[in-house]
Amino acid sequence: MKKVKVGISNRHVHLTEDVYNMLFATPLTKKNDLTQTGDFAANEVVTLKTQKGTIEHVRIIGPYRSYNQVEISRSDARKLGINPPVRKSGDLENSEAITIVGEKGEVTLENVCIIAERHIHINPSLANEWKVNDGDLVQVSIKGDKSCLLDAHIKVSENGVLAFHIDTDDANAASLEQDDEVEVFL
Amino acid sequence: MKKVKVGISNRHVHLTEDVYNMLFATPLTKKNDLTQTGDFAANEVVTLKTQKGTIEHVRIIGPYRSYNQVEISRSDARKLGINPPVRKSGDLENSEAITIVGEKGEVTLENVCIIAERHIHINPSLANEWKVNDGDLVQVSIKGDKSCLLDAHIKVSENGVLAFHIDTDDANAASLEQDDEVEVFL
Repeated sequence: MKKVKVGISNRHVHLTEDVYNMLFATPLTKKNDLTQTGDFAANEVVTLKTQKGTIEHVRIIGPYRSYNQVEISRSDARKLGINPPVRKSGDLENSEAITIVGEKGEVTLENVCIIAERHIHINPSLANEWKVNDGDLVQVSIKGDKSCLLDAHIKVSENGVLAFHIDTDDANAASLEQDDEVEVFL
Repeated sequence: MKKVKVGISNRHVHLTEDVYNMLFATPLTKKNDLTQTGDFAANEVVTLKTQKGTIEHVRIIGPYRSYNQVEISRSDARKLGINPPVRKSGDLENSEAITIVGEKGEVTLENVCIIAERHIHINPSLANEWKVNDGDLVQVSIKGDKSCLLDAHIKVSENGVLAFHIDTDDANAASLEQDDEVEVFL
């Protein structure tokens, strides 16, 4: 049994530089670094908009990416009246469309919105030690007043920093807080 | 392994007749029956209020009860800026205070607000057949795109109708819908 820290992802967006520049007049600026090496929360936020609802103050995660992606929770999806699939990052085929509103403009993107699968970031060396491969399904044990066993996928990347990434629905359902330590069954 | 249907409880309140009458000028009226025998969703709704937030349109569940109880999710609690304990119904010692606003008045109640524990309603005869007792902890297996194993307590009552009761956070985290069928490990 291995231990891992919880990272709770609130709704957020990843943007290409081109799309960012359609939404903002000034470049993306860093607010603070995130756990995963290179990732940062930007000062810039957008509004997510559908025909049925709006969510304001959604943070952009930098740096710019090669594709646009909007990650929301099921609760958010209900507010917006859409039904995004639960997916790995980057797996956007037949995902939901959404309108992103910035300071100077807005853009509607197809196949951009998902609910992120629960996953565990890990680097190749530690994955090798744990004898797990990218994509493996493992169980994470949550103790406390909302105890449960949550399935999660292993996500191996060169700069991966060990962390169990869940969304706000998972955190609220399992009474988890940022940086809580939980156990992984391999 | 046994099968059970999911019942999703949105935030709601149970009120004594005395407190109800402080909030409304006309008697409680039935909107529709609920799964558990005798319980009904009322037409009347209240607003929940704290110093930090407000949630409108919270349904009263009838009939009147011998005690007041407000059941919300962790997401709701964050909006209201309070930290209610996860509890069984009726276990209200050192739970949260909240202000309930009705059509004609409002009342602030101490030790009234909880997050309801996940539980499985069952009658004594079926509990006997399943060899479970009131309060037993069992595991409910959720398949699908947010697969997990959720702990739940057995709640035996004379008129209990078999159902796995969870709140909206649990439902959203596990991609469950009302009346979905799930499996219980005893």
